[in-house]
Amino acid sequence: MRYQLYYWPTIQGRGEYVRLALEHAGAGYDDVARGPGGMAAMTKMMEAGDRPPFAPPFLKAGRLVIGQTANILLYLGARHGLAPKAEKGRLWVHQLQLTIADLVLEVHDSHHPLGPSLYYEDQRSPAKKRTEEFWKQRVPKYLGYFEWLVSECGGTYSTGRRATYVDLSLFQIVEGLRYAFPKRMKKFEREIPKLVALHDRVAARPNIKAYLASDRRIAFNEDGIFRRYKELDI
Amino acid sequence: MRYQLYYWPTIQGRGEYVRLALEHAGAGYDDVARGPGGMAAMTKMMEAGDRPPFAPPFLKAGRLVIGQTANILLYLGARHGLAPKAEKGRLWVHQLQLTIADLVLEVHDSHHPLGPSLYYEDQRSPAKKRTEEFWKQRVPKYLGYFEWLVSECGGTYSTGRRATYVDLSLFQIVEGLRYAFPKRMKKFEREIPKLVALHDRVAARPNIKAYLASDRRIAFNEDGIFRRYKELDI
Repeated sequence: MRYQLYYWPTIQGRGEYVRLALEHAGAGYDDVARGPGGMAAMTKMMEAGDRPPFAPPFLKAGRLVIGQTANILLYLGARHGLAPKAEKGRLWVHQLQLTIADLVLEVHDSHHPLGPSLYYEDQRSPAKKRTEEFWKQRVPKYLGYFEWLVSECGGTYSTGRRATYVDLSLFQIVEGLRYAFPKRMKKFEREIPKLVALHDRVAARPNIKAYLASDRRIAFNEDGIFRRYKELDI
Repeated sequence: MRYQLYYWPTIQGRGEYVRLALEHAGAGYDDVARGPGGMAAMTKMMEAGDRPPFAPPFLKAGRLVIGQTANILLYLGARHGLAPKAEKGRLWVHQLQLTIADLVLEVHDSHHPLGPSLYYEDQRSPAKKRTEEFWKQRVPKYLGYFEWLVSECGGTYSTGRRATYVDLSLFQIVEGLRYAFPKRMKKFEREIPKLVALHDRVAARPNIKAYLASDRRIAFNEDGIFRRYKELDI
């Protein structure tokens, strides 16, 4: 089955966690808003039908239309060997992904503390304060947690020797923090050697390696979740 | 099977969405940190074992320990008739719950825009700005979406004639916004008559009614997600 992914065409954003899973699985998919139909095709899907998603990304899988990043990964994980099949492991991996989703929202809040519908330029001073708190309290808490998990599981991936969609997402978190906060992250990486090794392990997987080198991978930019603002990276 | 719910003992918070589901289902459960073991019992669970959750709430269900509110509801929904059994409906209801989780985070950000680890008193001015944006942009967007869904589904519950855990959560959202922002919410309720009717319908269900009248329901207060700060409710 060929999938249709609907997401903003110019950013990695939340869609990237889905792209990484599809690419890793070698699944066929159209990145619809980047294709011939463009944004109009996405808008049409959001206005049509009786169950429109609240926001992108959403994935069309045959007759199913699935929204919310972690929910899409829950679905894909079961079908493409990207999560354990048994209930206990499936719920655990989903739980970790939801924890990553919380972190992603906090990354976004670091440059948009006054709300998602205002410009960054109108909230620079609170963004500085929020970013301080983010790096002092939140990054160590979140990444320390995942570092510990990887270590407990033998040091390969976050739940053991097999990669799941959570590991693909952790790769993206490391990539994103490196992009947005190169100075801060360089210092912080000393604290998370196992996560860095996990990042490298994911980056070296053949399908991911090919994807990252392709033009299907959109470059980071200042419209996405991870944004590089010099004054926030001190 | 008797469940053990682990959550902060003095607030509704995110644990309340789980409590409402357990109460509606008439399931037996211990609210552990409010019981004889107190907070020590919760702390012990978070430090023990090889798969500690990142944060409360988490639910012990026999040998399973499940974290993340929406993940717990995904589990309970399947077991207590609080969600459709078929994949399409199950994913859809989970998707809606994840959208509510995003809204809950934005409610929290309205009084904590500079981050969860700083006091409200240290962020009053940005909280005012964030709250303005929240009521101008975000509440209409989120609640307008759910109002539309209830309407599309025939006006009873958010996915049709049977209540799911999403409806219990929507009840809690209306309750919480009424508590935190009585003036703003009073005006806004005109825009969401179907959600208000859904709220009343949930409140009237026998198990929920009994729960709300019991001392198991913790009162709203200024340590929770929904906080009443006069200066934010103008």
